[in-house]
Amino acid sequence: MISPVPPKTDPWTWPEDVWRGAVEHVRAGRSLKPARWKDGATFAVALSFDSDHETIELRNGGRSYSKLSQGQYGARAGMPRILAMLQRHGVPASFFMPAVAAMLNEREIEAAAAAGHEIGIHSWIHELNSGLDYETERDLALRAGDVLTRLAGTRPVGMRTASWDFSPWTLKIIREIGLLYDSSLMADDEPYELLDQGQPSGIVEIPVEWIRDDAVYFSMDRFAALRPHGGPQMVLDIFLRELDLAAQEGGLFQLTMHPHQIGHRSRIWILDEVIRAAKAKGSVWFATHAEIARHCADEAGMAAQGLPDVTAANGRS
Amino acid sequence: MISPVPPKTDPWTWPEDVWRGAVEHVRAGRSLKPARWKDGATFAVALSFDSDHETIELRNGGRSYSKLSQGQYGARAGMPRILAMLQRHGVPASFFMPAVAAMLNEREIEAAAAAGHEIGIHSWIHELNSGLDYETERDLALRAGDVLTRLAGTRPVGMRTASWDFSPWTLKIIREIGLLYDSSLMADDEPYELLDQGQPSGIVEIPVEWIRDDAVYFSMDRFAALRPHGGPQMVLDIFLRELDLAAQEGGLFQLTMHPHQIGHRSRIWILDEVIRAAKAKGSVWFATHAEIARHCADEAGMAAQGLPDVTAANGRS
Amino acid sequence: MISPVPPKTDPWTWPEDVWRGAVEHVRAGRSLKPARWKDGATFAVALSFDSDHETIELRNGGRSYSKLSQGQYGARAGMPRILAMLQRHGVPASFFMPAVAAMLNEREIEAAAAAGHEIGIHSWIHELNSGLDYETERDLALRAGDVLTRLAGTRPVGMRTASWDFSPWTLKIIREIGLLYDSSLMADDEPYELLDQGQPSGIVEIPVEWIRDDAVYFSMDRFAALRPHGGPQMVLDIFLRELDLAAQEGGLFQLTMHPHQIGHRSRIWILDEVIRAAKAKGSVWFATHAEIARHCADEAGMAAQGLPDVTAANGRS
Amino acid sequence: MISPVPPKTDPWTWPEDVWRGAVEHVRAGRSLKPARWKDGATFAVALSFDSDHETIELRNGGRSYSKLSQGQYGARAGMPRILAMLQRHGVPASFFMPAVAAMLNEREIEAAAAAGHEIGIHSWIHELNSGLDYETERDLALRAGDVLTRLAGTRPVGMRTASWDFSPWTLKIIREIGLLYDSSLMADDEPYELLDQGQPSGIVEIPVEWIRDDAVYFSMDRFAALRPHGGPQMVLDIFLRELDLAAQEGGLFQLTMHPHQIGHRSRIWILDEVIRAAKAKGSVWFATHAEIARHCADEAGMAAQGLPDVTAANGRS
Repeated sequence: MISPVPPKTDPWTWPEDVWRGAVEHVRAGRSLKPARWKDGATFAVALSFDSDHETIELRNGGRSYSKLSQGQYGARAGMPRILAMLQRHGVPASFFMPAVAAMLNEREIEAAAAAGHEIGIHSWIHELNSGLDYETERDLALRAGDVLTRLAGTRPVGMRTASWDFSPWTLKIIREIGLLYDSSLMADDEPYELLDQGQPSGIVEIPVEWIRDDAVYFSMDRFAALRPHGGPQMVLDIFLRELDLAAQEGGLFQLTMHPHQIGHRSRIWILDEVIRAAKAKGSVWFATHAEIARHCADEAGMAAQGLPDVTAANGRS
Repeated sequence: MISPVPPKTDPWTWPEDVWRGAVEHVRAGRSLKPARWKDGATFAVALSFDSDHETIELRNGGRSYSKLSQGQYGARAGMPRILAMLQRHGVPASFFMPAVAAMLNEREIEAAAAAGHEIGIHSWIHELNSGLDYETERDLALRAGDVLTRLAGTRPVGMRTASWDFSPWTLKIIREIGLLYDSSLMADDEPYELLDQGQPSGIVEIPVEWIRDDAVYFSMDRFAALRPHGGPQMVLDIFLRELDLAAQEGGLFQLTMHPHQIGHRSRIWILDEVIRAAKAKGSVWFATHAEIARHCADEAGMAAQGLPDVTAANGRS
Repeated sequence: MISPVPPKTDPWTWPEDVWRGAVEHVRAGRSLKPARWKDGATFAVALSFDSDHETIELRNGGRSYSKLSQGQYGARAGMPRILAMLQRHGVPASFFMPAVAAMLNEREIEAAAAAGHEIGIHSWIHELNSGLDYETERDLALRAGDVLTRLAGTRPVGMRTASWDFSPWTLKIIREIGLLYDSSLMADDEPYELLDQGQPSGIVEIPVEWIRDDAVYFSMDRFAALRPHGGPQMVLDIFLRELDLAAQEGGLFQLTMHPHQIGHRSRIWILDEVIRAAKAKGSVWFATHAEIARHCADEAGMAAQGLPDVTAANGRS
Repeated sequence: MISPVPPKTDPWTWPEDVWRGAVEHVRAGRSLKPARWKDGATFAVALSFDSDHETIELRNGGRSYSKLSQGQYGARAGMPRILAMLQRHGVPASFFMPAVAAMLNEREIEAAAAAGHEIGIHSWIHELNSGLDYETERDLALRAGDVLTRLAGTRPVGMRTASWDFSPWTLKIIREIGLLYDSSLMADDEPYELLDQGQPSGIVEIPVEWIRDDAVYFSMDRFAALRPHGGPQMVLDIFLRELDLAAQEGGLFQLTMHPHQIGHRSRIWILDEVIRAAKAKGSVWFATHAEIARHCADEAGMAAQGLPDVTAANGRS
């Protein structure tokens, strides 16, 4: 069996099975870019929002009322603008919510679900997986799924790790929960099947990228050198260039945003422009991450993945 | 009673009352966005300047003559440009001054007050509140208020914490001093009432945001990776976009600047453009933070807050 | 003999031979800018790609699956776009690959070599040379050369150190291996001969610069303050300005890119524009780094450097 | 006597004489902005270049051959472009050179002096003054002055501290050497007289600013988060805006550049544009820092400062 975690020795001294083991533990397998999208669309757009709100600061200790208020902004001011804009354009999106953020903002998750948007797992309290042991990570993922199920009314079929921090156990846990897809890794522009130690896992990856993440450009930390870079016009330019080639290649344009970032007055117009630009390109399929994953899996002839009963599966029935 | 400061344990192990307690200790309550602004204006603009000058370096130990000279620039070169521009446009502003900065520049605070601008509390020497105990923070705030009262001729009715660093005790102290408003938190674009452990506090919050703070884009530290980002054209673009949607929503556009930043030759034009753009939108109410806070409180029917005698209130009569 | 590494004493206390020794250990000697380029071209363009892929994360410990997936993106999504674009334009390039990256992506190095591109040494696993002793650095360089020779079919004639981290021993090792050129230093825009402790070394330097490196502008680290800066339009502007003056001076325009950076949808167009702009300037010679180095050495009348048998030279026949 | 260095206690506990002492130890005194510039010019331009070259890396230990080569670029590729451009435009400039950089590049300092440019003191090996004791700082400054005098043929009359790092002793040493001016502090846009513990010092300050320093925007550190920001178009925009208001105010536009930064192909055009723009504004006086300082001192009726014999003054005759 391949050891997932390399030893803390100098990497240039590693024998081949160590660096191969690290690389192959979780890796991109076959492409799931479909030959065709739904309803004759020539390309697809999957919008997502990580509704972290207060949990980013809570994860860091919860002692800054300033940062907590920034998180509340996401729920209080950002989300209404986002939901209204999605409704005006008639496009669906996927909302990934830490369980604690969902419980702090129950009406938000209800409203998003009621509007037909997808709710996906996004950790318990925005904790980093790579610092957890298997049992803790698994327990938090299961409990997060239960919270979202209770509040959204349907069981999540996808996961996005907080800070896209994928641990040696994350794929194993995703498989145990019986999810359809993950959306945390970056090995391609198009969906692919994850390999688990070299073997097809049956899990669809809807790849993300920092390039297509609003927080990359807009984050601010008073006591570090982290500042917003380039301004909203630069961000729109980057997003549109990603969109352009996605459309040209007949592929997927996936975008990650945060209500406490994109929801601001000087930024929300970017979302508007992206949606308009996608529509102007002709035949586009706006879909949730779950719909994209299901379609790609079906087109690739992957075994139809009935969602197992998670409660039974995790022994907490 | 809710414990304000979470324990230093792993946040994913916290019981619900811990994360709820952290979030609810100081939080945004009901919106105070008024149905109408003064004199038939359709939106409002509140300009503010944090006149920190030498205190930023003093707070850090006071050993860099280079940084002290940058601070002096704010008083010597920046302030005259700012006061002249405000006068030319006939608009009021709020100046938040650390007590030490006020004492180092007595003619500045006198001139600003004489021109009808508001003077607000902004710490003693730009100290960070979150490192202080309750007694020290309270004593410094009281003494700072006394210094400003003596130099400006009127008692401040609002506070902005230095570096927007709000401690577990800050709201309690604001209430004890009997202030009308705080301007350090960020949970909304519009004024709101602060909740104190879930209960209405009677304190108006005039929210700030790093997005609308010139120092975010212009700060420089030779020995860190902090550099000016994006240039003045980007900063103007961001400010104007914030202004645009504020006007469109019939809301408040609040802006934070620093004389040692915006006061430079390559930046002062931004302030000019912002004021011109606001005026060009039609019916705008330029007001101090105190005027905004008073109007919002009145419109919301909050108990008219006579300013208590702070001297009596703090037992130092 | 000049001591290559200064003592860890205060530099202002060093005697002259210490600072001269540090400066002269490896330094630019005579310019090798040729009087004429090949085929009557008035300037030259040398494109290069550091195909690091997964080795950047492996070098750092190999524990982030997210970063490993970013590396895989370079091989999986970036390289096909790059190779197709080079083919469409009919221009050659130089690919510098860590040995481990080559072994992880054997078809890539074969395809690049088969298309006529140059393959150059680029460390074993992207290790930093300055932390190695002479024997280790030499052994890794030799083994890396052997791997590339086996996979590409021809023996490399040039080296680029990983992260352009040149150790006190690197030049000595380059000479022992019998390479034609190095491409890691930055003392000029034009090729030059390296001086080894003040003496001509017979080694051509094809200088690089961070200014002409895509990773400088596009790198991202979630847990540091490193973010993409300025966007693709700024990057193109910088590259074109470097190109403009190179053409005007009748010199060399050298560019360093990374498949996992420039290969993205929002960035690949930059390469397209750079090649178009170079062609539009009239008579340009697109060449590999090896071709540039050979031409410059020949024009300067440097002793024709037959490549010694490295296997024999390093005693591993 | 005022203690120059504050104690390492919490600044909010300092008595008034401590923070006043810190602020007043070295501070801007009366403005020396002259009523008129030379030859009827309506504003003045003072260009300067800090020719640090290899000393930036030597100061940091001298172990990176990559950074040493970047330094050599300044001398080898940057300086010829700069000197040619200044000659083409017929404008003088001030070159501040660490003594070690001057000794490493003797022909450069000779060429600059021969072309009529000013040579100013800029430390021994780019050491930071604030880490030195008085005797060491004084000795290095004196020896640096001697080296420049020997190589340039005339004794320097001005100093710029390395990294603008002004120690508690720097002003005292400047006065002891008998210099005319310093150019390291930032309290104004216009020249001013330095106050030494509240008393006029007779020393002219030609203020600098990070805003008008090319290194701020162009520096790069592979292993920190420091990257070039904004690109050359942004830098030109900032410099031109500083110039615009300087001309409009009838004042001084002072600019700091570095041969290893501005000297690059993608950046040297900025200098060209700045000079063109200044000339296009009408009547401009291009002058060295020494000429500006002398003119301002004369216009202000400061005691004509004959330069004392430094050799005699420092007891090393």
